[in-house]
Amino acid sequence: MDAVTFEIDAQLKQTSYPIISLSVCDLRLVDDQRWPWLLIIPRVPHTVELIDLSPELRSGVWLEIDHVARVMRDQFSPYKLNIAALGNQVRQLHIHSIARFPEDAAWPNPVWGVGDPEPYDATLLNTRLGALRDGFA
Amino acid sequence: MDAVTFEIDAQLKQTSYPIISLSVCDLRLVDDQRWPWLLIIPRVPHTVELIDLSPELRSGVWLEIDHVARVMRDQFSPYKLNIAALGNQVRQLHIHSIARFPEDAAWPNPVWGVGDPEPYDATLLNTRLGALRDGFA
Repeated sequence: MDAVTFEIDAQLKQTSYPIISLSVCDLRLVDDQRWPWLLIIPRVPHTVELIDLSPELRSGVWLEIDHVARVMRDQFSPYKLNIAALGNQVRQLHIHSIARFPEDAAWPNPVWGVGDPEPYDATLLNTRLGALRDGFA
Repeated sequence: MDAVTFEIDAQLKQTSYPIISLSVCDLRLVDDQRWPWLLIIPRVPHTVELIDLSPELRSGVWLEIDHVARVMRDQFSPYKLNIAALGNQVRQLHIHSIARFPEDAAWPNPVWGVGDPEPYDATLLNTRLGALRDGFA
C-alpha cells in the first residue's frame, strides 16, 4: 500500500461520508438515506479489479467485505444484502454493501440509478455514523 | 456440502446453461448473448448470504470468484468486470460475473432488468461453452 499517492476518487468522496478505516479498506456511508449503503474502498492506488490486488491484499479485502456484511446484518436486519463490485461509473476499485428490504424504493431491482438520492438529515446521519463506528470498533 | 438435497433454483436453471462444476461452485452461462455473463452457484443447500457459509467454504467461493474473473478477462478482455451477489429475485446464493464494455446495451448502468434477453444462437452458444470449459479445465 502506498499511503502517499492513494486518494479516494472525487465522485465517491463527494457522495459519501467517512465511517472508519479498517486494515485494508476505508469504509464510507453513501449519502442516501433510502438504504443503509456502505462503500468498501481498498487503500491501494491504481486498482480497478479485485483480481488486480495481490493475493494477500485480496484476502484482506474479502475478510473486510465479510466483516461489513456481519455489521450490516447486526444493525439493519436486512431481508437481503447486496454486495457488488461494479465500477462502470467510477473505475477506482470499490465494493458496495447495501441492506435491502422488500418495502424499499427499488425492490426487487438493484438500487443503482433508481430515482434521486435522499441526502441524510443531520440527526439520522450522526446516529447512523455513530452506530456504524461502534459496530466496527 | 450435501449432494443429496442441493438443487439449483428453477429460475436460475431455466435462464442459463451449465458450464462446469468447480470444487465448491457450479458455473453457468446466462442465456443472454448481449453480455458474457456467468453465474457462480455454491453447491451448498439453503444458503442465502455469503456470510452464511462456513469460513472454509467461503474462502473456496472467493477463490472461485477470482478464478472466474481471470478466465473472463482472458477470454473477453472486458473494459470492466461486474461481480455481484444480489439475490433480490432469486434467494439461493449465486454470484454474477459479467464482462462489460462501453459499447454494450446497458453501459454504464448495471445489466439487470435492461431490455429483453437475447438468447444465444446455437453456434455462438456452443463456441462459447466450449471455450469456457477449456478455460476452466
